[in-house]
Amino acid sequence: MMRLRDLLPALDWARDYDRTSFAGDATAAVIVTIMLIPQSLAYAMLAGLPPQIGLYASILPLVAYGLFGTSRTLAVGPVAVVSLMTASAIGPIAEAGSGAYVAAALALALMSGLILVAMAALRLGVIANFLSHPVIAGFISASGILIAISQAKHLLGIPAKGDTLPDMLRSLAGTIGDANLPTLVIGVAAIAFLFWVRKSLKPLLARLGLGPRLADLLAKAGPVAAVIVSASCVALFGLDAQGVKVVGALPTGLPPLTLPQVDLDLWSELLLAAILISLVGFVESVSVAQTLAAKRRQRIGLNRELVGLGAANIASALTGGYPVTGGFARSVVNFDAGAQTPFAGMLTALGILLTTLFFTPLFATLPQAVLGATIIVAVLSLVDLRGFLRTWGYSKADGAAMTATAVVVLAIGVEPGIVTGVGLSLLLFLWRTSRPHMAIVGQVPGTEHFRNILRHKVTESPQVLSVRVDESLYFANARYLEDRLYDMVATRPGLRHVVLMCPAVNFIDASALESLEAIAHRLNAAGVEFHLSEVKGPVMDRLQRSDFFDHFKGQVFLSQHQALAALDPDTTRKADLAA
Amino acid sequence: MMRLRDLLPALDWARDYDRTSFAGDATAAVIVTIMLIPQSLAYAMLAGLPPQIGLYASILPLVAYGLFGTSRTLAVGPVAVVSLMTASAIGPIAEAGSGAYVAAALALALMSGLILVAMAALRLGVIANFLSHPVIAGFISASGILIAISQAKHLLGIPAKGDTLPDMLRSLAGTIGDANLPTLVIGVAAIAFLFWVRKSLKPLLARLGLGPRLADLLAKAGPVAAVIVSASCVALFGLDAQGVKVVGALPTGLPPLTLPQVDLDLWSELLLAAILISLVGFVESVSVAQTLAAKRRQRIGLNRELVGLGAANIASALTGGYPVTGGFARSVVNFDAGAQTPFAGMLTALGILLTTLFFTPLFATLPQAVLGATIIVAVLSLVDLRGFLRTWGYSKADGAAMTATAVVVLAIGVEPGIVTGVGLSLLLFLWRTSRPHMAIVGQVPGTEHFRNILRHKVTESPQVLSVRVDESLYFANARYLEDRLYDMVATRPGLRHVVLMCPAVNFIDASALESLEAIAHRLNAAGVEFHLSEVKGPVMDRLQRSDFFDHFKGQVFLSQHQALAALDPDTTRKADLAA
Repeated sequence: MMRLRDLLPALDWARDYDRTSFAGDATAAVIVTIMLIPQSLAYAMLAGLPPQIGLYASILPLVAYGLFGTSRTLAVGPVAVVSLMTASAIGPIAEAGSGAYVAAALALALMSGLILVAMAALRLGVIANFLSHPVIAGFISASGILIAISQAKHLLGIPAKGDTLPDMLRSLAGTIGDANLPTLVIGVAAIAFLFWVRKSLKPLLARLGLGPRLADLLAKAGPVAAVIVSASCVALFGLDAQGVKVVGALPTGLPPLTLPQVDLDLWSELLLAAILISLVGFVESVSVAQTLAAKRRQRIGLNRELVGLGAANIASALTGGYPVTGGFARSVVNFDAGAQTPFAGMLTALGILLTTLFFTPLFATLPQAVLGATIIVAVLSLVDLRGFLRTWGYSKADGAAMTATAVVVLAIGVEPGIVTGVGLSLLLFLWRTSRPHMAIVGQVPGTEHFRNILRHKVTESPQVLSVRVDESLYFANARYLEDRLYDMVATRPGLRHVVLMCPAVNFIDASALESLEAIAHRLNAAGVEFHLSEVKGPVMDRLQRSDFFDHFKGQVFLSQHQALAALDPDTTRKADLAA
Repeated sequence: MMRLRDLLPALDWARDYDRTSFAGDATAAVIVTIMLIPQSLAYAMLAGLPPQIGLYASILPLVAYGLFGTSRTLAVGPVAVVSLMTASAIGPIAEAGSGAYVAAALALALMSGLILVAMAALRLGVIANFLSHPVIAGFISASGILIAISQAKHLLGIPAKGDTLPDMLRSLAGTIGDANLPTLVIGVAAIAFLFWVRKSLKPLLARLGLGPRLADLLAKAGPVAAVIVSASCVALFGLDAQGVKVVGALPTGLPPLTLPQVDLDLWSELLLAAILISLVGFVESVSVAQTLAAKRRQRIGLNRELVGLGAANIASALTGGYPVTGGFARSVVNFDAGAQTPFAGMLTALGILLTTLFFTPLFATLPQAVLGATIIVAVLSLVDLRGFLRTWGYSKADGAAMTATAVVVLAIGVEPGIVTGVGLSLLLFLWRTSRPHMAIVGQVPGTEHFRNILRHKVTESPQVLSVRVDESLYFANARYLEDRLYDMVATRPGLRHVVLMCPAVNFIDASALESLEAIAHRLNAAGVEFHLSEVKGPVMDRLQRSDFFDHFKGQVFLSQHQALAALDPDTTRKADLAA
C-alpha cells in the first residue's frame, strides 16, 4: 500500500523535529545563504541568464526538494556543471540574455523536472548506475576547466565567446587587446583574496583565538566580503564609468510566477539536452547525497530522489528559475555546518527570499569580474588530475573512457562528451567480456581440484581436454569460444572428450546456445565428444527449458572431478592417490 | 613476416589444383550460373537498378573474391538483403533507375569495399561478433517479409511504392485497382511453378529414374525454365502490348569500366548505410562461410574475409555493379554441387560474362512478374518463425531484441532496425549484468565447501556474513553491490565480519573499485570488518597495482574456508567435524 509518508518524506522528519534540530538547521542555513548569494548570481551569469534568475532558482526549488527529497542534508540550487550545460543547450537557439533565452531556460527546467518525475514513475533510478565513475569524473573535470576558462572574459572585461576550448582560446586571443585594466585588477585581486580565504583564513582566525565555528562562518563569508568590498569600491570610485562591467540594476521583489510555454519545436530541440541535464544532475546529486547519508547511517531512495529533484526543477520553472540540482560543495558545507533536516534548506530559501526582497540594490555596482572570480575558485576544485593518473594506473580501459570524455567535452562540447564517454565505456566493457579468459585445467594430484595447467603442477588426461571459461557466454564472446575450442582440439590428435567447465558462467544467451550446439555438432563430426561440467542451477534450468538436450549427445557433470572419473578412470584414480 | 600467401590465399589452392578439383568446380559453376542469371536480374530490380547491373555485379566481384577470400566455396554476388538495403539507402537521394541512382550505387559499392578493407587493416573482423544471433535473425526475417511484399507490385503490375510495411500496404491498397490481369496470371503461375520445382521436382525426377546429380541440376534450373518459358510466351502472344511489364532491351557486351565519382556530400549521406551494408554483408557472408568450411574441416580468417569481400565490392564499383556479398542459398548450392576451390566462382563469372555477351537479347520480353516471383520464392525461406518462438522460449531478453529488430525493420526501415537491435541487445546485456546474482553462503558440514543457504543445509557463523557475488564487478552493478551488502548488514546486528567471495569475479573496474573502498569504509565505520576471499589471480594482480591495499584494513583469504577458520574458529571447527 502506498503511504503518504512514501510520497512526502518530509512527514518523516517533521514528526520528531525539536529545538536541537532547529539550532543545527538555522546555523547551516545562515552559512549556506551567505555562500549561495554570490554563487547563484555567478552561476546564472555562467548560464547566460540575468543574475536574478540565479536567486529565483534558489528559493522555491529548495522548498520543493525539502518536501519531496529523501536526503536530509542535500543543498539544492544552481550548480556550475548544469549551468554550463544550460548555456551550451540554449546558446545555439537564442541570444544570451534575451527574452527567448530566458523562456528556453524555463522550458529546460520544466522538461528536466518532468523527465525526472517520469523516470521515478518508471522506477528508472538505477539508470544512474550506467554512468561509470571514470566517465563522470572525466566529464566533471573537463567541465571545470571549460567553466574556469569561460570566465576569463569577465576577468579581462572583453566580449570573448565560444562553447569549446579551441573556440574560447581563439576568441580570447582575438579580443585580448580590448582588455580593461581596472577590471583585470579587480578580478585578479578577487581570485587571490578568495584563494587566500579558502586556504589560510580559517587557521589564521583560529590562531587569533576565535572559536572554530565562528572562524568557519567568517571563512565561508569570504565571497560575500569580496562582493561587498568590490561593489563599494566601484560605487565609491565610479569604476563603472572606466569600463568595469557591473551586474547592474536587479529587480527587487518576489520571484515572478511563470508558466513555461509548451512549444513543441523548442522542446524537441532541447530534448537531448534536457535528458542529459536530468541525468547528470541526478548522478551528481545522488553521489553527494549518498556520501553524506552514509556518514550518519541514513539512506536515500533513488526513485524518491528523482521525485525530489523533479519537484525542485518544476518549482524552478514556475518561479522564473532554470535547471537546478544538488550541489556538491554546498551540500558538504550544509552538512558540516550542522544541518539536521531539509528544514535547513527551507530556511536557506527564506534567506535568499529576503535578499531578493531587500538587498538586490546592493549588487548594482558589483563587478562581473568578482562573480567570475567566485566561479573560477569554486570550479577549479572540480578538476581532479590525481584521479586521472590513479584511474590510468588501475585500468587502461577506464583511463581511456575518462580521457576520451574529457577531451570531447573540451574540444567538441559537453553533450557529445558525455555521450562519447558512455558509449565508449559500454564498448570497452563488451570488448573486455568478448575475449574471456579460458584456461586448460588439470587435476591437482591428491585433491579433487582442477587448476590452470600453466600455473599449477597438475595431472592432465591424454584423452580428455578440460577447459574452464571465466565469463558468461553471450553474443560478443560466442564465436571466440568456438574458435578457441577448435584451435585447442586441432592441436591434440589423440583426444576423445572435451569437457567445458562452467563455474563462472552466470548465463548463456541465445547466440551462445547456438554456438554450443555448433561446437558439439562439429566436435562430434570429428569423433570427439563434448561435455559440460559445473553448470550453475539457473543456467541449467534455462538449458532444460530449451531444446538443447534434444540434440546434445554429451553429458553434464556436477563437478569436473566426476567428469574425469567417468571419462578417464585410470588417470583420475592415479591422480586421486598421488601425494 | 608477411608472406605473399597471406595476401593472396589463392596461391594456397592453386598449387594443388588438379583434374578432380576442376570437375567439381565446373559442375558447381554450371549450376550456380543457371541459378544466378535470374537472381542477379531480380536483385538488381529489387535494388531499384537496371537489370544488367545485377549481371555486372556477378562477374569481376567473383574473380576478386576468388583471389583474396579464404572461403573455398562462398558464392559472392548480389543478394536480397543487401539489395534491399541499397534501395533504402539510395531511394531518398535519387529517382530509381536514373543516372544519379546508378552512380550512387557505384559509390555505395566503392565505400563498402573501402570500409571492409579498412576494417581488415584495423583487424576489426571480430566486430562481427557484436551482432547477436537473435538480432541478425530478426533482421533477416523481417527483411524477407519486406522484400516479398515489395515484389507484390511486380506481380500485380502496379506502380506501388514505399520502403516500410505500412507505406507499402497503403500504396498497394491505393493502386490495386490498376492491377493488370495477364501480369497477375503470369506472376502467380511462376510462383506456383517455382514452389513446385523446389518441393516436388527432384523427388519426381528421381522416381523417373534420373541420376541424383542430373535431377538436382534440372531442379536448380527451374527458375531459368520459368524465365525462358515466360519470355517466349510474352514474345509469342505479344503480351507486353497488353500491359505486361517486361525487362526490355538490355545492353549487350562487356561490363563497362566505371570510376565512381568522389562526391563528399553524397558520400556523407551514404556513410551510415555503407557501414551497415558492410557489416550486414560481412556477417551474412561469414556465417555461411564458417558453416561450410566447418563441414570440410577448413578454416576461414575473419580479417582476410574482410579483404576478400572488400576486393569484391571495389571490383563491383569499377565494373558498373553495386554492393555484393556472399549469398546464403547460393553458397550452399555451390558447396553441394561439389565446388572445391574459389575457381568455381571464377568459372561462374565466365558463365555470366558469356551471358552478357550473347544472351541478353533473350531477356527483352522477360516479364518483371517472373523476376518478382523468383525473389519471393527465394526470400520466403529467410523468414524463420520457428526461430522466433524458440528464442522467446529460451530467453525473454533475446526474444525482445529479436522482435524489436524485426518490428522496427518492418515499421521504420532496415537501418533503424539494425541499430535498434544492436543497441537493445547491448542494453539488455548491461541490464542482465547490472543485477548480479548474490547469495549468502554457509559451510556444508563435514566439507570445506560453501553453498547458498537458501538451497543447501549449511552452517552459518553468527558473526561472519559470507556473501558470494556471481558476476564481474563494474560500473553498472557497483552501486547494486553496495546497496545489497548494506541491506544484508543492516538486518544482522551481531555481525563482526563480512567476507565477499569472488570466485566468479573476472574483473573489477575503476567504478567497482571505488565501491569496494566505500563499502569497506562504511562497514568499518559501523564496526564491521570487510574481507575478500577467492580473488582470482589476474584480479588480485590489478588490485595490488592500485592503492587499494593502502586503505583496505581487511584480509584477502585464499578460500572461504580459510576465512571462516580465521574469523570464527569455533563454528568452523564444529562444522568441519560434523558428519
